[in-house]
Amino acid sequence: MPVNDNATLEITAFKWVPDFAQGFVRDLRPRWACEEIGLDYSERLLGLERPDSYYREQPWGQVPVINDGGIEMFESGAILLHIAEKDERLMRRDPQSRASTISWLFAAFNSIEPLFFELGNVDLFAKGEQWAELRRPSLIEFLGQRLDRLSDALGDRQWLLDDFSVADIAMVTVLREGAQDEVITSRPTLAAYVGRGVARPAFERAMAAQLAPFAENEPAAA
Amino acid sequence: MPVNDNATLEITAFKWVPDFAQGFVRDLRPRWACEEIGLDYSERLLGLERPDSYYREQPWGQVPVINDGGIEMFESGAILLHIAEKDERLMRRDPQSRASTISWLFAAFNSIEPLFFELGNVDLFAKGEQWAELRRPSLIEFLGQRLDRLSDALGDRQWLLDDFSVADIAMVTVLREGAQDEVITSRPTLAAYVGRGVARPAFERAMAAQLAPFAENEPAAA
Repeated sequence: MPVNDNATLEITAFKWVPDFAQGFVRDLRPRWACEEIGLDYSERLLGLERPDSYYREQPWGQVPVINDGGIEMFESGAILLHIAEKDERLMRRDPQSRASTISWLFAAFNSIEPLFFELGNVDLFAKGEQWAELRRPSLIEFLGQRLDRLSDALGDRQWLLDDFSVADIAMVTVLREGAQDEVITSRPTLAAYVGRGVARPAFERAMAAQLAPFAENEPAAA
Repeated sequence: MPVNDNATLEITAFKWVPDFAQGFVRDLRPRWACEEIGLDYSERLLGLERPDSYYREQPWGQVPVINDGGIEMFESGAILLHIAEKDERLMRRDPQSRASTISWLFAAFNSIEPLFFELGNVDLFAKGEQWAELRRPSLIEFLGQRLDRLSDALGDRQWLLDDFSVADIAMVTVLREGAQDEVITSRPTLAAYVGRGVARPAFERAMAAQLAPFAENEPAAA
């Protein structure tokens, strides 16, 4: 596991989050990318109460941010691209592969994830509210149409491009937000794609690394 | 105006769209980037009925896609980054400026635009539906909190970074989707920022270029 206090790359994550968020905090993405290429990283672990100064690093107060030898970045898409520039196993170097990898990276974050944000609101944060119940059918219909297009684009390939890339780290982590939902389970191509992603040893190590501090920092029962 | 049938870079746009979408189709973004650096581009104009083959170029059937000397890309964020790699006026070359530009580019598309997608649904596509009326207050509250953070991050700078960059093309076009709404008009820092963006001569030329084919291809009245 490449967590190493002396690493040049530092990933900021949380000491602890509530159960529903464990395994889904977005520092999972850069951890996974590092694990795929054996790149050491150190951890900076924040409490849930972020100091005001943290908003100067990350305007929304979220994780992850990285500091890579003094270079600071935020937004998991930007961070994934930064790590992918280091190793062709995350982004092939020929111009079309590079162009397609970056296209799919933005697609995951702008064309698919926003719909899962809304589904997360409807099914979790606003669960039971009247608007959420009334909204759900049309959201599922629109999301389903988009997922059918994604399934068509994936076709019978294993990954979005011919080879595994950072775009798959983005898309698998996005789709995984709804992996237990019928929108994914009813689409075998996508369910199998998510399954392949989370079965990668690098994903499993990244997940273990995210969860490790949560077990150590579990708050005492009230 | 750099529209040039012989240009290496081809931007795909629409022949015509309904009034509410005119001036807001996303090919505005790469057109604006090209105008900022005087980069010639050619146009491929689609009808609203896209052939099935188009979904192999753009999985959701949207515009823009580009073809740059044989390299194909989709997603306006990816395309903006591709154009920005050509000229430091769109992305400064020192490592921290590059990192910050890409961070803000993803922030526009993943942390701000999804909320305007939802607002567009509530105020336009689902206007009058009960869920939309019930949802609006909590959406406006969440969007407003995020816009306050954005306003703080912008502070008294003219642009997201010290100099204008491709991140401003992304963020201004995102915020412009709600520029007439109280969420923007009530925040002077953001309203002024959008105003500075759309006052740039390159923006005005990009807008004129998007609108030109719509005037030529206006359908006959039914």
